[in-house]
Amino acid sequence: MERLAVAARAFSAQGSAGAGGVAMVQGASRGIGLEFVRQLLRRSDEGRVVATCRAPGNAAELQKLKEEHAPGRLTVLPLDVTDETTIEAAAASIQETHGSLDLLINSTGILSIPNVIQPETTLSKVQKSSLLLAYEVNAVGPILVIKHMWPLLKIGGRSETGRGFSLVANMSARVSSIGDNGLGGWHSYRASKTALNQLTKTVSVEFGRKDNIACILLHPGTVDTDLSRPFQRNVPKDKLFTREFSVQKLLSIIDSIKKSDNGKFFAWDGQEIPW
Amino acid sequence: MERLAVAARAFSAQGSAGAGGVAMVQGASRGIGLEFVRQLLRRSDEGRVVATCRAPGNAAELQKLKEEHAPGRLTVLPLDVTDETTIEAAAASIQETHGSLDLLINSTGILSIPNVIQPETTLSKVQKSSLLLAYEVNAVGPILVIKHMWPLLKIGGRSETGRGFSLVANMSARVSSIGDNGLGGWHSYRASKTALNQLTKTVSVEFGRKDNIACILLHPGTVDTDLSRPFQRNVPKDKLFTREFSVQKLLSIIDSIKKSDNGKFFAWDGQEIPW
Ligand SMILES: NC(=O)c1ccc[n+]([C@@H]2O[C@H](COP(=O)([O-])OP(=O)(O)OC[C@H]3O[C@@H](n4cnc5c(N)ncnc54)[C@H](OP(=O)(O)O)[C@@H]3O)[C@@H](O)[C@H]2O)c1
Ligand SMILES: NC(=O)c1ccc[n+]([C@@H]2O[C@H](COP(=O)([O-])OP(=O)(O)OC[C@H]3O[C@@H](n4cnc5c(N)ncnc54)[C@H](OP(=O)(O)O)[C@@H]3O)[C@@H](O)[C@H]2O)c1
Repeated sequence: MERLAVAARAFSAQGSAGAGGVAMVQGASRGIGLEFVRQLLRRSDEGRVVATCRAPGNAAELQKLKEEHAPGRLTVLPLDVTDETTIEAAAASIQETHGSLDLLINSTGILSIPNVIQPETTLSKVQKSSLLLAYEVNAVGPILVIKHMWPLLKIGGRSETGRGFSLVANMSARVSSIGDNGLGGWHSYRASKTALNQLTKTVSVEFGRKDNIACILLHPGTVDTDLSRPFQRNVPKDKLFTREFSVQKLLSIIDSIKKSDNGKFFAWDGQEIPW
Repeated sequence: MERLAVAARAFSAQGSAGAGGVAMVQGASRGIGLEFVRQLLRRSDEGRVVATCRAPGNAAELQKLKEEHAPGRLTVLPLDVTDETTIEAAAASIQETHGSLDLLINSTGILSIPNVIQPETTLSKVQKSSLLLAYEVNAVGPILVIKHMWPLLKIGGRSETGRGFSLVANMSARVSSIGDNGLGGWHSYRASKTALNQLTKTVSVEFGRKDNIACILLHPGTVDTDLSRPFQRNVPKDKLFTREFSVQKLLSIIDSIKKSDNGKFFAWDGQEIPW
């Protein structure tokens, strides 16, 4: 763990993202999102991070990170992707405090919630409510966030960040690939993430035409978080990544993205995933 | 038009689908769905067709077709894909009257409804309500129909239909292809149909493992219907198909489907469409 942290620090010194820019991590209370915040803050003494989550008051880890870093480096804002007014309010707040965004990472995602939604093992267990909820959180949510952050992303992405354009990274999942779907099951989650892929591609076409913004999709691998926990039993130990490792890999992809990668879908190891 | 009709009749004499079986066309009040009903009824003197629509009382064309054919050949049932109880009731009614299904065509789809949903020309016009409505009708609806017709499809598909397995054909659209998305726009429609592709593929994996059922996706071309009407201005005349022509082509695909085509996505000309 400490070794990984050192490696991350060493690596991030070369990183180009967020050196002096503003990065927003949406869905940052736990899991991969929280780890993105941690590693982004560690990269330099300048980059500012906006972390959003549903309940900042309960996000103890984020509050701790805030205390550990210089004032102004981490801003924590409330944002629930199912409540568009909170997205608009977050955009207005970032506009006022930071004036622009260089990087937006949408990490929010749901797979299972006890008594609410469970990954389906068969068509006969598919419920309309699960299909709609997964779609609302996993596909609609990130797109509404991009919609409202768009004006800030248009202003960001200039040379100070080292990238020359703003970047949006949406957390997808390999199981969203239709071409790669040999196992079946997980209807609600799969379909919502596949739709997220299409929406991201659609948005990337418009950005590619008009704006200095690129949009990509990322698969983090199978990562040891609350999301994967109920399903880790059949995962070989060496295929279950730590959050530190996965986010290190994803940040190295984010750092090396070129404008021509706009609209692409990358796994943690940099390989493109087929649609 | 008459020439097309004659050609369709000649063609369908060779067709294998629905010769003596039971075909269900879901979304049959208008457009492509209605034309499927018309051509399926014309194919033989035996095949029975179940046509479903939201308001059978207003479906004058379906009622006319019912009168034109022998008693029992066409059954018209109410089914609104957004109301699962109507899907269950239709399944119960078909169970009682026909006992099985050999072919299920899901044709229902929405692209624009005045004052309710419009294909988006830019991200700034994307509305949560449109994303959710398109998903509910275009992706969730057909999957719930398959879920409830599954027991009937398991019984159907035997040799009398000439195919040896039951077939589900979902109407998708070329714009659902992520790989083929070079234009952008139409976020709600695209994402809903892409999700339908993933859901169909997911269901096909389970059917392929357990059942004598195959599932495919179809793109009908750009067809002269209420759905395409507001967007026909930029369509070259020879690229705008009549309903007769498109459904003839789609039925010829349906007739030639092999079990190994399970989970595939075909355009009207038989070409596979990339995901
Ligand atoms: N872990 C894996 O193996 C894996 C694999 C493939 C893809 N992914 C994807 O990676 C992303 C991160 O996953 P994770 O493993 O870090 O999951 P996680 O540990 O379960 O964290 C999920 C995050 O999403 C937030 N969230 C849930 N509903 C929300 C809403 N309505 N509005 C705002 N935030 C909401 C949660 O906030 P609360 O604390 O408020 O609930 C939490 O911060 C997800 O998109 C997931 O699909 C993960
Ligand atoms: N036309 C094209 O160029 C084209 C191109 C690509 C793909 N497609 C796809 O082909 C399929 C058929 O399209 P079309 O051109 O025939 O469209 P259409 O003429 O507009 O007909 C749409 C049908 O869907 C039904 N429908 C709408 N909402 C419904 C609901 N909630 N429950 C049940 N039925 C509902 C309508 O019934 P009501 O009469 O009750 O409204 C109508 O029968 C669609 O899936 C469409 O996306 C069409």
